[in-house]
Amino acid sequence: MTLNVGVIGVGMIGQDHIRRITQVLSGADVVAVTDVDLDRARTVADGVADARLHVTGEELIADDSVDAVVVCSWGETHEQYVLASIDAGKPVFCEKPLATTQQACERILSAETGAGRRLVQVGYMRRYDAAYRALRDVVQGGTIGLPLMMHCTHRNPSVPGYYRKESAITDTAVHEIDMVRWMFDEEIAATTVLVPRKSRNGGELQDPLVLLLEMDSGILVDVEISVNIRYGYDIRGEVVGENGTAALGEASPVRIRSAGLVSDRVAADWRERFIGAYDVEFQEWIDALRSGGELGPSTWDGYAAAIVSNAALEAMRSGMRTPVKLPSRPDLYGG
Amino acid sequence: MTLNVGVIGVGMIGQDHIRRITQVLSGADVVAVTDVDLDRARTVADGVADARLHVTGEELIADDSVDAVVVCSWGETHEQYVLASIDAGKPVFCEKPLATTQQACERILSAETGAGRRLVQVGYMRRYDAAYRALRDVVQGGTIGLPLMMHCTHRNPSVPGYYRKESAITDTAVHEIDMVRWMFDEEIAATTVLVPRKSRNGGELQDPLVLLLEMDSGILVDVEISVNIRYGYDIRGEVVGENGTAALGEASPVRIRSAGLVSDRVAADWRERFIGAYDVEFQEWIDALRSGGELGPSTWDGYAAAIVSNAALEAMRSGMRTPVKLPSRPDLYGG
Amino acid sequence: MTLNVGVIGVGMIGQDHIRRITQVLSGADVVAVTDVDLDRARTVADGVADARLHVTGEELIADDSVDAVVVCSWGETHEQYVLASIDAGKPVFCEKPLATTQQACERILSAETGAGRRLVQVGYMRRYDAAYRALRDVVQGGTIGLPLMMHCTHRNPSVPGYYRKESAITDTAVHEIDMVRWMFDEEIAATTVLVPRKSRNGGELQDPLVLLLEMDSGILVDVEISVNIRYGYDIRGEVVGENGTAALGEASPVRIRSAGLVSDRVAADWRERFIGAYDVEFQEWIDALRSGGELGPSTWDGYAAAIVSNAALEAMRSGMRTPVKLPSRPDLYGG
Amino acid sequence: MTLNVGVIGVGMIGQDHIRRITQVLSGADVVAVTDVDLDRARTVADGVADARLHVTGEELIADDSVDAVVVCSWGETHEQYVLASIDAGKPVFCEKPLATTQQACERILSAETGAGRRLVQVGYMRRYDAAYRALRDVVQGGTIGLPLMMHCTHRNPSVPGYYRKESAITDTAVHEIDMVRWMFDEEIAATTVLVPRKSRNGGELQDPLVLLLEMDSGILVDVEISVNIRYGYDIRGEVVGENGTAALGEASPVRIRSAGLVSDRVAADWRERFIGAYDVEFQEWIDALRSGGELGPSTWDGYAAAIVSNAALEAMRSGMRTPVKLPSRPDLYGG
Repeated sequence: MTLNVGVIGVGMIGQDHIRRITQVLSGADVVAVTDVDLDRARTVADGVADARLHVTGEELIADDSVDAVVVCSWGETHEQYVLASIDAGKPVFCEKPLATTQQACERILSAETGAGRRLVQVGYMRRYDAAYRALRDVVQGGTIGLPLMMHCTHRNPSVPGYYRKESAITDTAVHEIDMVRWMFDEEIAATTVLVPRKSRNGGELQDPLVLLLEMDSGILVDVEISVNIRYGYDIRGEVVGENGTAALGEASPVRIRSAGLVSDRVAADWRERFIGAYDVEFQEWIDALRSGGELGPSTWDGYAAAIVSNAALEAMRSGMRTPVKLPSRPDLYGG
Repeated sequence: MTLNVGVIGVGMIGQDHIRRITQVLSGADVVAVTDVDLDRARTVADGVADARLHVTGEELIADDSVDAVVVCSWGETHEQYVLASIDAGKPVFCEKPLATTQQACERILSAETGAGRRLVQVGYMRRYDAAYRALRDVVQGGTIGLPLMMHCTHRNPSVPGYYRKESAITDTAVHEIDMVRWMFDEEIAATTVLVPRKSRNGGELQDPLVLLLEMDSGILVDVEISVNIRYGYDIRGEVVGENGTAALGEASPVRIRSAGLVSDRVAADWRERFIGAYDVEFQEWIDALRSGGELGPSTWDGYAAAIVSNAALEAMRSGMRTPVKLPSRPDLYGG
Repeated sequence: MTLNVGVIGVGMIGQDHIRRITQVLSGADVVAVTDVDLDRARTVADGVADARLHVTGEELIADDSVDAVVVCSWGETHEQYVLASIDAGKPVFCEKPLATTQQACERILSAETGAGRRLVQVGYMRRYDAAYRALRDVVQGGTIGLPLMMHCTHRNPSVPGYYRKESAITDTAVHEIDMVRWMFDEEIAATTVLVPRKSRNGGELQDPLVLLLEMDSGILVDVEISVNIRYGYDIRGEVVGENGTAALGEASPVRIRSAGLVSDRVAADWRERFIGAYDVEFQEWIDALRSGGELGPSTWDGYAAAIVSNAALEAMRSGMRTPVKLPSRPDLYGG
Repeated sequence: MTLNVGVIGVGMIGQDHIRRITQVLSGADVVAVTDVDLDRARTVADGVADARLHVTGEELIADDSVDAVVVCSWGETHEQYVLASIDAGKPVFCEKPLATTQQACERILSAETGAGRRLVQVGYMRRYDAAYRALRDVVQGGTIGLPLMMHCTHRNPSVPGYYRKESAITDTAVHEIDMVRWMFDEEIAATTVLVPRKSRNGGELQDPLVLLLEMDSGILVDVEISVNIRYGYDIRGEVVGENGTAALGEASPVRIRSAGLVSDRVAADWRERFIGAYDVEFQEWIDALRSGGELGPSTWDGYAAAIVSNAALEAMRSGMRTPVKLPSRPDLYGG
């Protein structure tokens, strides 16, 4: 039984997910699309056999042939489509962020807990990356003793023109914010933002930044955020334990000896680095919906990420250590 | 339009390909299975929605609902199923070897050239491995100058009890035999087998061996074949060019610092190392059949591998350098 | 003309330097020794051909046959021997710290500037390590653009029983404090100490710690200080520039493939890691004294390290970012 | 008691050893020099305090102030100076080769065994390299089981104009010939030379070559000899055992991330790669002579290397596997 998916928002990421569902993965099909730009939606629909065009997300959600919804539209619109999906009792995969305000996240929390079952999955794909998973297995397996610290780097070669200073938290470090909650199975208690010397590659932007995250247990995470570092897209992470450390491996398909150097390759961008993680993320989502298995990152995860991001933004503005105030976790999310 | 596949032979590798086609990849379905062990075939068929059971491979091939055939049966039976598929005008994916004798390969060559179009693909999955592909791109891109040598290691932690001395060539090094033909786009001219000191891990078996392959252009390839080396499954390759070298990268998902060491992981077995290559191999085969694109390793490749393997076996017996006598390549295969 | 050296303090480090001067390096000899423990001094003197025993450091310094003094005694006594050496107009190599209080350092500064020429070198041996030197060349050569951050780790497998919480700064991180001043040719403006989750390996000790150092230009340095991490002695450093990064290489004499892992070695302790740096440090000191060349780390460097260490200790106590107040640099030290 | 050394032959390598003895190492001095080019000898003597100039090697050897002789002259002259040193009862360090013919080596063997004690050390410096020593310790320690094979690469970026085809054996691979005898504590039984495709970088020269060495126990060694490979000087070695492998580590002082690559450095030439080994080689030689300790590579080692080299040259000419005929080892050399 094929899972019939409707996709709301068919920009770059939406189109990539359609390609993934229709040409790469097993067990699902795209049967409906829509977009705020209807011409674009029509073009995309024309390229997918059997995909119907809808003029609104709400119409798509209401379509009886749609078993599950994928939301890749502009962040401001996530709330309405997720709420409508919950209302229709349909599973919904929502690209990050879950919503753009704390209040919006809380409305979604409230709707889903009201429905009494999980319908929402948020698109934190790092949890599906083979290297992060292997790292988490090592950390949780005890090889290095209790984890005490984690050093992360999140480096982009460049960022688009619309990237603002807040983006360093809400677009970039938000991946690490979710990742460490999952890595250590605990919440973030406080954040601080440190400001190093400024790169001239970033123009007006303060780049790089360092985000400090203090976990509930006291684990201290530092995240270097460098978004104009030219040389490549470089995601690293090393967990420091009592007796040793464990780090993400560095994968390069080839090693070249040339001109005085032995060189491995760095990924050019996030697509190259995480394409496998996106594939696994969607295959596991499809499999979970088809077989009744467990869903991935939840509304609660999206909400927690929003709360921590807000604290980090406040820390950035104030220059002060800023506690994270998270309400207690509802039962639906393992609270 | 889904590609409907029939699978002949549902042992370990056949079942794995069924899993791949039905649960991992896009665009194909398994609609028929058979096996010399009908009970096993029935059990497997029961686990795949809509898969019919056939009592013979020939019956499966004749089934109108079968668009394409996958042959994973015992090597001795490959010839008959491949010939029957060609006769039926159906595309057939045949696990290596294409056939177990030179004469059988020649009968397949003759049948396919007689049919006037390519129907057969042989299962040399290394051509689909990301690292080998990146290596080939570097070699052919000229970064290291003309290629002059290639050093390969093919190491298995252990081999099953039925592994005989000939298996080092026909089961193990045959992967390198195909790989270097593809890596350098040329044929192998001669082979030699060298005999190092014997490992006590291999019992009666002469293990390790070194296989030398001389390419038409003079490129010299050495292949270390160690099949009881305990520590892991380790496939390495370094192409030595005039100005530098390029090697397969070494991928480990995590790097651990513990007990005086910084350690990366080695794959445990070929499944772990090449699972991604098998996925790509089948997805590209499915895509090629659905869209009319180009097929992968051909009957000619399977035939050439057989001829070179026979020369290597002769070299092993005689201790002498043994030339490879390959007829001219038919037009159908780019001759 | 051999440089005749007198050594004050012949504990472990003093004996190691005597071995170095008499058995490893060229151009110097040890002609006099003393120690607060005269029995130990006598035993050591007996093992060195031509080495006279002195009952006090002052007597050793006054010995006409002594061309230059090496001070390896207890930190509290450094000031008196360095001052006496300056007073006698003799070059003196003083193991770190230069002195144990800011005031003592200032008295030495005052004495040396009064003498009008450099006589003192302080034992910061990292400046002589081949990897740190190569790193500094890359950083100053511009390959990575302006330096913006530096990530350091300083990991010890264990520490002796007398190690107190202040030691994390004054014994451990003081190496990084000197190193970054030299790496970037600028002073440290402020320090902060962060407190991660505590390792159970350290007993009562707060271990690990993170020391933040803000350079005058804004370069932000973070130093992980883990002193009971069991797995080895691991000194790492990565400078993050605008366009790339440069890090200390990881040197292992062998790479072993065994039991599922590819492993490199980590140094067991600081002796193994820095033995080469100590050799270069003393050979260059000897050469400078014999040929009139330039000395290494100066009284000013020892003083600055003391000021920064005091600020870091204050930061540790208060939990606050603590500015470093450094007077202007005297002309003698390139001010 | 300083060891007074006389140096015969003060070309590049002779001058480097003089620098080493007088400015780097401990316990020795250069008191006499000579050279076939007396003007050069005079210039060098003028630069070394207390070094006398001699007009012949024989005169230098006879000089009573000379405790030990270092022979760095042209290979053809090694025999006469080594024999004269033995005749004078003086220790002599002879740069490789011990002599240029088998007969000359045998005359030296005969003279030294006649003298009844070891006086000669041959300059095979790889035995003093930290990485090779660590590798040998691992191999002999049993971690990888019995050694079965060794893969070596000996790569030079370029070679001087006087390099002839025989040089690949006598100047280049001779280092591996000595090294494997020492690595495995056994002799070489046979050699074969393989001829890969020819690099255009080497002009008329057949470059690269592969030298196969079969040890007495059956261990099979392959040595890639590439002497115009441009990218750097790259010495690698991996010993394949029954249960794992051990390889020379790859040391780079810095790791740079720039322009899409993570890069380590390759040595530029043999000086950079082996400078430390030369220092250790001479310091241990000096220490052995001063303290009566054991000498390094012997006349027997030099002789065995000559015999194997001759077999390899014969193998190169004939294209055939060529056995090595080595007489039994005299008692003086542990026979």
